[in-house]
Amino acid sequence: MNTKKVAIVGASGYSGEVLVQLLLNHPYADLVAVTSRQNAGQTLAQIFPKFASHPKSKTLRFVEPNAELLAKQAEVVFLALPHGVAAEFAVPLLNAGCTVIDLSADFRLKSAEIYKEFYAHDHPAPELLKKSVYGLPEVYREDIKKSLLIASPGCYPTSILLPLIPLLKARLIKPNGIIADSLSGVSGAGRKAEIDYLFCECNESVRPYGVPKHRHLSEIEEQLSFAAGTKVTMQFTPHLIPVNRGILTTLYLAPEKHFATADEANALGQQIAACYAKAYANEPFVRVLEGKALPDTKNVVGTNVCEIAWRLDPRTGRLIVMSAEDNVVKGASGQAVQSLNILSGWPETAGLV
Amino acid sequence: MNTKKVAIVGASGYSGEVLVQLLLNHPYADLVAVTSRQNAGQTLAQIFPKFASHPKSKTLRFVEPNAELLAKQAEVVFLALPHGVAAEFAVPLLNAGCTVIDLSADFRLKSAEIYKEFYAHDHPAPELLKKSVYGLPEVYREDIKKSLLIASPGCYPTSILLPLIPLLKARLIKPNGIIADSLSGVSGAGRKAEIDYLFCECNESVRPYGVPKHRHLSEIEEQLSFAAGTKVTMQFTPHLIPVNRGILTTLYLAPEKHFATADEANALGQQIAACYAKAYANEPFVRVLEGKALPDTKNVVGTNVCEIAWRLDPRTGRLIVMSAEDNVVKGASGQAVQSLNILSGWPETAGLV
Amino acid sequence: MNTKKVAIVGASGYSGEVLVQLLLNHPYADLVAVTSRQNAGQTLAQIFPKFASHPKSKTLRFVEPNAELLAKQAEVVFLALPHGVAAEFAVPLLNAGCTVIDLSADFRLKSAEIYKEFYAHDHPAPELLKKSVYGLPEVYREDIKKSLLIASPGCYPTSILLPLIPLLKARLIKPNGIIADSLSGVSGAGRKAEIDYLFCECNESVRPYGVPKHRHLSEIEEQLSFAAGTKVTMQFTPHLIPVNRGILTTLYLAPEKHFATADEANALGQQIAACYAKAYANEPFVRVLEGKALPDTKNVVGTNVCEIAWRLDPRTGRLIVMSAEDNVVKGASGQAVQSLNILSGWPETAGLV
Amino acid sequence: MNTKKVAIVGASGYSGEVLVQLLLNHPYADLVAVTSRQNAGQTLAQIFPKFASHPKSKTLRFVEPNAELLAKQAEVVFLALPHGVAAEFAVPLLNAGCTVIDLSADFRLKSAEIYKEFYAHDHPAPELLKKSVYGLPEVYREDIKKSLLIASPGCYPTSILLPLIPLLKARLIKPNGIIADSLSGVSGAGRKAEIDYLFCECNESVRPYGVPKHRHLSEIEEQLSFAAGTKVTMQFTPHLIPVNRGILTTLYLAPEKHFATADEANALGQQIAACYAKAYANEPFVRVLEGKALPDTKNVVGTNVCEIAWRLDPRTGRLIVMSAEDNVVKGASGQAVQSLNILSGWPETAGLV
Repeated sequence: MNTKKVAIVGASGYSGEVLVQLLLNHPYADLVAVTSRQNAGQTLAQIFPKFASHPKSKTLRFVEPNAELLAKQAEVVFLALPHGVAAEFAVPLLNAGCTVIDLSADFRLKSAEIYKEFYAHDHPAPELLKKSVYGLPEVYREDIKKSLLIASPGCYPTSILLPLIPLLKARLIKPNGIIADSLSGVSGAGRKAEIDYLFCECNESVRPYGVPKHRHLSEIEEQLSFAAGTKVTMQFTPHLIPVNRGILTTLYLAPEKHFATADEANALGQQIAACYAKAYANEPFVRVLEGKALPDTKNVVGTNVCEIAWRLDPRTGRLIVMSAEDNVVKGASGQAVQSLNILSGWPETAGLV
Repeated sequence: MNTKKVAIVGASGYSGEVLVQLLLNHPYADLVAVTSRQNAGQTLAQIFPKFASHPKSKTLRFVEPNAELLAKQAEVVFLALPHGVAAEFAVPLLNAGCTVIDLSADFRLKSAEIYKEFYAHDHPAPELLKKSVYGLPEVYREDIKKSLLIASPGCYPTSILLPLIPLLKARLIKPNGIIADSLSGVSGAGRKAEIDYLFCECNESVRPYGVPKHRHLSEIEEQLSFAAGTKVTMQFTPHLIPVNRGILTTLYLAPEKHFATADEANALGQQIAACYAKAYANEPFVRVLEGKALPDTKNVVGTNVCEIAWRLDPRTGRLIVMSAEDNVVKGASGQAVQSLNILSGWPETAGLV
Repeated sequence: MNTKKVAIVGASGYSGEVLVQLLLNHPYADLVAVTSRQNAGQTLAQIFPKFASHPKSKTLRFVEPNAELLAKQAEVVFLALPHGVAAEFAVPLLNAGCTVIDLSADFRLKSAEIYKEFYAHDHPAPELLKKSVYGLPEVYREDIKKSLLIASPGCYPTSILLPLIPLLKARLIKPNGIIADSLSGVSGAGRKAEIDYLFCECNESVRPYGVPKHRHLSEIEEQLSFAAGTKVTMQFTPHLIPVNRGILTTLYLAPEKHFATADEANALGQQIAACYAKAYANEPFVRVLEGKALPDTKNVVGTNVCEIAWRLDPRTGRLIVMSAEDNVVKGASGQAVQSLNILSGWPETAGLV
Repeated sequence: MNTKKVAIVGASGYSGEVLVQLLLNHPYADLVAVTSRQNAGQTLAQIFPKFASHPKSKTLRFVEPNAELLAKQAEVVFLALPHGVAAEFAVPLLNAGCTVIDLSADFRLKSAEIYKEFYAHDHPAPELLKKSVYGLPEVYREDIKKSLLIASPGCYPTSILLPLIPLLKARLIKPNGIIADSLSGVSGAGRKAEIDYLFCECNESVRPYGVPKHRHLSEIEEQLSFAAGTKVTMQFTPHLIPVNRGILTTLYLAPEKHFATADEANALGQQIAACYAKAYANEPFVRVLEGKALPDTKNVVGTNVCEIAWRLDPRTGRLIVMSAEDNVVKGASGQAVQSLNILSGWPETAGLV
């Protein structure tokens, strides 16, 4: 198998850390550079003691981010930077011929207007929005193969889109009235020195936030609209819960077909099962649960897997779908490596579990 | 102020423990007996070291439960027993003239049929269902004053009913299509030796359960139906999260009045604010949050307070209401003591914070 | 009972928050002022939603710290400030006739040289070191009654001194070779926006720090030396563990009397039991455990109690003593209120559990 | 590389689960059988959803334990059973020609008398004690290569022996007076339905237990005695802390050489550094930390690495050594696989990180 030289810009946050872990141990990727303003000069082993057993951790040092230099060293560059900043880095890298896999929100939307509405500043490089591919492999695998700019999806969006897109495409649920209630571990807030995310502020606490218009709604609704073929506006409530990693999403949906009896529920259930089987039976990283099993974040943390289960409620006529993922793996860095595997022609599961 | 002799049957679970704590420190209640099969013969201090500073903890010993004896010792008896068992205890106590405050589900429903549907056995004392009062003081205060049998509400129901009842009574929301997404700390599962509730099974885990027909739906729907004046069927999804105590509920509601603009949202918002102010401005244990504040379980754990906040979303036309409470205080033992205060003619906040 | 007007300087950290809680609910203290640079202008209810049910929380607002003004308002001022800063505040308050209860390290030592050795700067007010009283009520109760400047002990020192001082005074253990291994909850690090204390950095982590010369050694060794009548140098290793509150200390001690048989252990055990009984049988906030019970932080968190248990090991000839306390109650704010009660002539347990 | 067929007896506890994980993903081991009384008939995927992505998880089913059958299927059998039970299983397996890697305490001691003293029953197969090898690869690598019965070390012993054995062998520390203060995550208690290990009993709690004579002392002291060439009796205090995995041990040691000045500490420090470098510089799974770094369980959880750091304290003349490991990996299942690798002639790091 051919190998590729890769680099990570902004490698000292939680997503960056998982990228380092995955790429250090990847069978075909060769991690050649990691950047970090605050850690420049230090080795990977010094900043991430848990990777100290890897030989490269003692020799690879963080450097100041410099797009020109990176473009000479690496064929693929991962950006784990705040939105706004990422776009500024992407432009010179793309111009120099690098492939860019961006973990920020900068290239996830097709519409610069919606970007401005949700991120409160003009898009820094609107001309690139047309060229970028939304890096959800289960939906855009073919596009990812050919793209030079991958916009890796957000953590909440991944947990919401994977369960919803097949149902919308199959016209099994109504595109309006969708509700997503999500619970996220604290790593989702990033490695930032803020009082709100101190241990004592999060431990023994559960709280909603960003109600009712969280930024991730923009990319969720855009992708759902593509799937449904009509504009989707939905409800989304994120909550912070005291775990390091993991997102659990519960979706409240209205099936297109009315059902009220056990028989009707059975018939509809077979359609839903078939829809998910068609979409995901051969997907390595989506697991539709069977029998009485329900998703649990502890079954997916540390893996690139998204678990999905569903229940029909004949009392209310609703479909409840639940999903679980690791917000920094399938919800961020693992999914980005999955895209790397795809665009490099490697086995899609290389370096991932 | 007059005092009352009180007893607790089943005092070694989590609700029983909080009852012990509240009643030991109550200014007017005199805790005279505590029962527990497995701890019979031991003092309160031996079983609950954290109360060992209280003088009575060294002298009051757990005894085997015996309704006849208890009826001679106590005027009010709290039952912290599993459903089914509680009813069997209540009958002789009531016959002997005791007031019973039951924390189980046995007397919460008015309908023995619904009880059987949800609890899978015949109601052990259906004739008492008419005499019992649902012990939610904010709704049934006057009835509680006169009743000899208080059915103290469940933890999830309390967190759902307090935010919903005023809105339904005021006809501000539609009675159909209500969704309650709830997150509970592990104490809600009780002090039972089961693998599912071991530390390592719950820590770093989040999971839904009881989907889509949890037992608490029976009392929630019955109470909502009374408030709405029409039969209410709703969606309820409980989740287990790794905290000791606390319930956070997020409610998705459809206002009766359509709104889509900021102005319409403002107008409707004033009605909602007025509705809650009327219901709760003078309630000592319901706190409707103002400004940007959202509920957080850490602000209510250890107290008898239920926090409520709400947001209107002009994008979806929905009203989102969020509540937080301590599942073993306002959701169980604290609320039961609140009922004790009311029926005893004591200040409602006596012994509670 | 007479009342006293009290104020808190630096009331937005974890110790400050518990002081607010205890003083709001104190039967005799009247909290008249709270200061905080970053929260000036806001009410107690806004900053500490969990106290919002207390009527005063809506009217009492944080103000900028101003010693002159505070001295006019309050008779007793609590300082919950960093070391160095606290001393600067104490001087004008004392000059204005206030009693000062300082929770920092500034007045805990008698020696300005040792202060400089451990805190790396000259003591800001060395002349006050002679006037201050070390606010450990179980040892200095009589001095506290008469003092105008109380240096409330550190959290680790309290958990170490309470078990050790009676043994040293009774000459039951050797003053040399003492080892204290302590585990502290994260609130001990304060409410500071630092990466090291983020949820994801502390959760699922245990780590030693400050090895081998933590600052608290200075006051521990000074107090142990007073008790032993000879200079004590000891070993102390603090560890950070993922709980909000609580310190568990394990002490490794050499009894003066050699023992190797069960009989010798029995005889020595009776002396130790008698020593602790004499010291603590009548102390409201020290609980020497009996039988097989061992300390557990969950039994003391939220209370002003320090639990102590001990074991003799005939295999090694050592005495093991273990203690547990709430680091922000008995280890900080609760103990400071205990001193307030003593110097005010109130019952020592007023406002404390 | 040749492969080997392996089986696990007692695969549904926490150690068994990690063995399953490691062996499913091992490059040379072929997991052919897993036994479990309570889960017989179910697939790996049903019991451990987190391994459901592995193809074998859907086909490999738990069976009732049967030594005769296992001996026909597997060349190496791992026993993850309670002590006492393990020995009964080992005998027929050994007789049938299997290699046995036992994770229980049954074959760790050379003395059947000490076994009886600490485990309170006669050893079930004392004749095997001479044949077994204590499976600590860093010490007994050559013996492991040739043995048919590996007694894999306990979790606490591993965290204590790895730091101590090189120092004792080099006569750098006194063999008497050793103190080990250890903190363990809750998985160390096993997947047992006991009240003491419920989430609410462990969360927000820290507590010592088994003071002063924990069972693990027997194997620790025996191994230390071998290393020191003299009988070692030591102090050991385990504590339970609220993390899933991880052991942090702090050792208090007396260097043979007195030191009191910085120069003397420097000289001694060089000897200690040289001793550890000689012992561990080439060991893949022992990491002696440099500079200011101290062990942190979060840096080793999920890996087979034991981190070690040390400090000399010129104030007390003591050496403090701290270690961190994952109790179910290096402290149990990872170390057992390390032995498998050694005795199979595979790279020692195969399947381990």
